[in-house]
Amino acid sequence: MRLATIATEAGPRPAAVVGERVLDIAADWHADSPPPHSVLDVIARGQPALALLQQQIERADAGAWQPLDNVRLLAPIPRPAKNVVCVGRNYKLHVEEGARARGVPVDYPKVPEFFTKPPTAVIGTGADIELPGITAKLDYEVELAFVVGRTARNIRAEDALDHIFGVTVLNDVTARDLQRSHGQWFKGKGLDTSCPIGPWIVTTDEFDLRAGHRLWLTVNGELRQDSVTSDMIFDCARILESLSAGMTVEAGDIITTGTPSGVGLGLDPQIWLKDGDVIEAGIDGIGHITNRVRAVWGASAARLPATAQET
Amino acid sequence: MRLATIATEAGPRPAAVVGERVLDIAADWHADSPPPHSVLDVIARGQPALALLQQQIERADAGAWQPLDNVRLLAPIPRPAKNVVCVGRNYKLHVEEGARARGVPVDYPKVPEFFTKPPTAVIGTGADIELPGITAKLDYEVELAFVVGRTARNIRAEDALDHIFGVTVLNDVTARDLQRSHGQWFKGKGLDTSCPIGPWIVTTDEFDLRAGHRLWLTVNGELRQDSVTSDMIFDCARILESLSAGMTVEAGDIITTGTPSGVGLGLDPQIWLKDGDVIEAGIDGIGHITNRVRAVWGASAARLPATAQET
Repeated sequence: MRLATIATEAGPRPAAVVGERVLDIAADWHADSPPPHSVLDVIARGQPALALLQQQIERADAGAWQPLDNVRLLAPIPRPAKNVVCVGRNYKLHVEEGARARGVPVDYPKVPEFFTKPPTAVIGTGADIELPGITAKLDYEVELAFVVGRTARNIRAEDALDHIFGVTVLNDVTARDLQRSHGQWFKGKGLDTSCPIGPWIVTTDEFDLRAGHRLWLTVNGELRQDSVTSDMIFDCARILESLSAGMTVEAGDIITTGTPSGVGLGLDPQIWLKDGDVIEAGIDGIGHITNRVRAVWGASAARLPATAQET
Repeated sequence: MRLATIATEAGPRPAAVVGERVLDIAADWHADSPPPHSVLDVIARGQPALALLQQQIERADAGAWQPLDNVRLLAPIPRPAKNVVCVGRNYKLHVEEGARARGVPVDYPKVPEFFTKPPTAVIGTGADIELPGITAKLDYEVELAFVVGRTARNIRAEDALDHIFGVTVLNDVTARDLQRSHGQWFKGKGLDTSCPIGPWIVTTDEFDLRAGHRLWLTVNGELRQDSVTSDMIFDCARILESLSAGMTVEAGDIITTGTPSGVGLGLDPQIWLKDGDVIEAGIDGIGHITNRVRAVWGASAARLPATAQET
């Protein structure tokens, strides 16, 4: 099943996507239980709710479906209940390009390197990625993200896939200068709009996490990243085992698994995102997201205005 | 005003603390508007709600007050809406003790180093700090934390104090071995129960953020940390300016400001927390929190069980 969140006049609503059609789940609900009010609500209700939802989809009136082109997709979980957890340096070639760019020896991580992005960074496909004046080195990172299906801790790798609800595409947009200058990565990874996610969540019954899936990213149509998820140093199961050791993960948590090589940092010469760039990021078997870069207060740190802007 | 969250039969409830007495705000509400259902709700309603709340406190029946000793305090915000943002290495002597412990040159940060702790780590005073088998080097860090009062970004340092709702005491419990081995600090800082906060939030009309306040921590009554908040490298205003540049901070966000020297990592020989240790952490003008350390699955990594525990 493909679960999306769509913008409606009544606010964000959970939706099912089948082929090129979209069903507003709550608007066409025929079961006795109240309809789910969000994708997070669907996840929290667990497998029985998914089975019920599948029935609703099969029984939906033809008139309840809208063409996909007619709806605006938000991030499938527009407001996560905590920060998105990310894994750094999880593809060998990306570790190598990063070390080369920094002029340091290659040192593959022995355990996953976890950091986070705040809920305020999350946007959906079609929304702009802001390029603020405080960074001159904005970069992209296509990643496979997974959504936790149930609340647990101390999950063993061999059981981990049973804990994963579904997968989606995530672009871990990164301000390389801030990532470096602030030591820890939260600031360089946490700017507003720096976490495009979507276009929807594909449940794991339709996406084999044990298989390799091509993931790719283009900037203005030029292919920059092109790899397979099976090249990860730590796969989803080992990531979830490591993360959940002594730390509860909750239904609806979003965990993203690192990016392959081809980021702007690793190019020679390096290329940074600029106003108007269009980024497409996709994973075969899921779909792709498209976001345009939009400069706010110009593109260089020197142009940081002296006055504050409140939002 | 001192705002707490108390455990009641009806669930967590916002409360006002005056001297040694506690008022369940919602249970004794005489205004036309609905009572706030949480401390986050009080903060979201802004200054008018605080003024109204002050009236309610002054008009409350004597019988509505309970002795502080009779209530169980939770963290003032038991479930933040995103991760707690932390600042690393923000007191000079702590930077020096950390460098000495690692055998590296002292290098003071030039900008704040931000990382996060998940909402699942938050506990209140009186709750146990778990010592899981995956760490053999659990450590404490007393810190001044502040709570953001309104949603904004690009806040200037000179305006920043107007954006701060109040302050509280936070113990940034840290698994030093995981902090080191995972590279980025989220894993070592994010274990369940590793974020005691409390005992309440003191609003900034009663706590001068421009002044120095003593902060201290004891383990089993032995003084380990004893410093003043004015020794911070980056004060609250500069932290908020740096954090909010290009990144929206929201009403209710918790931001903690780093720990002074005296952590177990910096002692010679180093001393790690063990089962049964009682930690008190306090800041003059706020109060203190008390938490006992409780080993779960023994205290050494070698004893990590092969089987998973679900919660």
